[in-house]
Amino acid sequence: MRAYRANILFTPTPDAFSIVERGYVIVNSEGLVEAVTDCVDRYQTEHNMPQIEVTDYGDRLLIPAFNDLHIHAPQYRNLGLGLDEELLPWLNKYTFPEEAKFADSGYAERIYRRFVHELWMQGTMRSCAFATIHPETTKRLMQLFREAGLGGYVGLVGMDRNSPDNLRNTPKEVETFHLEQLEECLSLHSDRVRTILTPRFIPSCTPEMLRVYGRLAGEHNLPVQSHLSENRSEIEWVKELEPLSTCYADAYRRYGLLGQTPTLMAHCCYSAGEEMQMLKENKVTVVHCPTSNTNLASGIAPVATFLKEGINVGLGTDVSAGHYMSMLRVMQYAIQVSKLHYARSEGQIPFLSLSEAFYLATKAGGSFFGKVGSFEKGYAFDALVIDDSYLNYDHYTLADRIQRFVYVGDDRDIRIRFCQGQALTEPIL
Amino acid sequence: MRAYRANILFTPTPDAFSIVERGYVIVNSEGLVEAVTDCVDRYQTEHNMPQIEVTDYGDRLLIPAFNDLHIHAPQYRNLGLGLDEELLPWLNKYTFPEEAKFADSGYAERIYRRFVHELWMQGTMRSCAFATIHPETTKRLMQLFREAGLGGYVGLVGMDRNSPDNLRNTPKEVETFHLEQLEECLSLHSDRVRTILTPRFIPSCTPEMLRVYGRLAGEHNLPVQSHLSENRSEIEWVKELEPLSTCYADAYRRYGLLGQTPTLMAHCCYSAGEEMQMLKENKVTVVHCPTSNTNLASGIAPVATFLKEGINVGLGTDVSAGHYMSMLRVMQYAIQVSKLHYARSEGQIPFLSLSEAFYLATKAGGSFFGKVGSFEKGYAFDALVIDDSYLNYDHYTLADRIQRFVYVGDDRDIRIRFCQGQALTEPIL
Repeated sequence: MRAYRANILFTPTPDAFSIVERGYVIVNSEGLVEAVTDCVDRYQTEHNMPQIEVTDYGDRLLIPAFNDLHIHAPQYRNLGLGLDEELLPWLNKYTFPEEAKFADSGYAERIYRRFVHELWMQGTMRSCAFATIHPETTKRLMQLFREAGLGGYVGLVGMDRNSPDNLRNTPKEVETFHLEQLEECLSLHSDRVRTILTPRFIPSCTPEMLRVYGRLAGEHNLPVQSHLSENRSEIEWVKELEPLSTCYADAYRRYGLLGQTPTLMAHCCYSAGEEMQMLKENKVTVVHCPTSNTNLASGIAPVATFLKEGINVGLGTDVSAGHYMSMLRVMQYAIQVSKLHYARSEGQIPFLSLSEAFYLATKAGGSFFGKVGSFEKGYAFDALVIDDSYLNYDHYTLADRIQRFVYVGDDRDIRIRFCQGQALTEPIL
Repeated sequence: MRAYRANILFTPTPDAFSIVERGYVIVNSEGLVEAVTDCVDRYQTEHNMPQIEVTDYGDRLLIPAFNDLHIHAPQYRNLGLGLDEELLPWLNKYTFPEEAKFADSGYAERIYRRFVHELWMQGTMRSCAFATIHPETTKRLMQLFREAGLGGYVGLVGMDRNSPDNLRNTPKEVETFHLEQLEECLSLHSDRVRTILTPRFIPSCTPEMLRVYGRLAGEHNLPVQSHLSENRSEIEWVKELEPLSTCYADAYRRYGLLGQTPTLMAHCCYSAGEEMQMLKENKVTVVHCPTSNTNLASGIAPVATFLKEGINVGLGTDVSAGHYMSMLRVMQYAIQVSKLHYARSEGQIPFLSLSEAFYLATKAGGSFFGKVGSFEKGYAFDALVIDDSYLNYDHYTLADRIQRFVYVGDDRDIRIRFCQGQALTEPIL
């Protein structure tokens, strides 16, 4: 048993932070949280425990690490570039040409190393990442996650229509890859890094491809990630491509890719009515990507409505349509764009509070990986030690300090990063 | 004469960057730009000049420094706090109580030092700042600008109605302060730091106060800064308070505070029709504050329309309703919120390009201070040396590099800051 002492803040529920001033998080040898307490000695006596070794971080903040549910690793080089188009031309002009480069293992090595390094830097301990169609470099990306100690569900991307010639694969290749990965996973002790079924989106996948994905999901209980209702032109296009589907979500559902296994759907800017009900009934996790949706002028997902309906929502950076790797910035944008719905509804739709945004970025997102994103008993100790002394120069409360860290802080303030109890060293670039 | 060599980027016009790879900016002894050239020796020979001393910044970027046309210095401590209210409750709950503290010179010294330090850190070499109603600490703020070498128009705030008892002054106090400052200015050699008339906004100022401001402006040709049409409730309130005015802007105009002298009006989220025409005819500079308007759910100024109408627009951080001191973030938000107008108009209203946003933050904003914000002949050499090596790890063009710096870079990348030819050292906290 070990204990980490600091000012502890986390969100067991969305409505408020749990705050323990100069408290302790007790962590067991498997890297799971045993308890949060304000007195380690009393806890030890009451629970008849052996000696607990304490590391004291003084006046620092100790918070759950961040979980990014939607990010495109091969788009890392394009961060901050090419934000002058909407989704479909943006894909063709900037994104597909960049992704095609990941046939080259040397190129992939350079960019993926930087990508993994920045996940670490920004305190994102778990993420769901799209790779490309290339099996070898996708495997290398998974390996880099493992080397860094980061958790990640990484997906070889499936695409076999409406794509450039050098960026297509076949249902067979997709199947082979995932079956191989399943075996590989069995041979490894840790399942912190796993494969995830990743049909790019309906326009990129033939019915045959989608059928194979559906079968793989059902037979092997594999999780699924894709894109849904991001942009108006895309939705129109899906209507043409899948005329039998009653809505965009229904196109996935018909192939067994909408919640039959744990499923992430990024964006959902226009998911209302039937589609919203379908997301709810099928227990799909919506990934809200506010920076991306703003950059590509896609739309704004009705997150407050989703939450009211009881739909699970997490947050995603969606690099590189989103230009920030930092989940701090994504939380802050989530609040900001929710204010646009608030303003348009003349105050009828509430905007997100800070604790709600924090909950989305930690516990709600973390739930896709198991017990991750909180300091409740049994949760993986994924945590960040925050030194906000630059921001904390006056008499600020802990509630003020977390707010200032989210709005004004950055990776410089993150001093130590734990993933499942393990303090991670800086990955080599 | 001195010359600075680097990759030079600036925006003489909004439509594109002028880029000179490994070029030179030649600066005279008064700190003004003499020329930009790709060959300093040829320039020297052709212009029959004495020896030019060259400082070579290698592969760094050299760009004009930023100009922030709307910022509240005493709200610096509240950065990132209290963003859960709209404008009027936000003022009463968070802002007025904080501003009242600036009666205390010790408190003001601490916070204003940090404020000026961060202006320097973020590369904002000129700004138009609101102080508070307190003459002594406002003078100290002006002094801190001078000590740091930064340019600033600093305003004692005038407010004598609808304000807390401890945050009111009188027209007489306002007049005395400004007349004193005019004398003070005459006695100083530099006018980089000046006084600016700062009636808070119509709801805070009685007709008598506004008349005194109008007279001071007219008699002494003093510039004016205030707030206009930020939020719907505020606009309704002004209608009640000034029933004779045809619109909010007209209330300022009737007192001689709308362009009779150089005038900044922050926000203008709802300035359309008659009010927009009034801004145009009176050559008022609109200060667009996109982070603030998003945080307080105020609205989104129709900047593309203003620009099309030929209205001068600059950018403001509006700290602390805006939570960023960085003009990089404000540029990026200006582009993003313009995409919301673009989306709502189904593409009829264009969104801002990167060069347009950069132009607003440099040359357009700088024009309020004279020839500032560009590297054209005669402009003050206000400049930043940017080391973007962390971002520039692959084959990026200079156009890519400036885009990535604006979207993904931050103050860490700013290595040297010039204000009117003088390299400024870090101000003491």
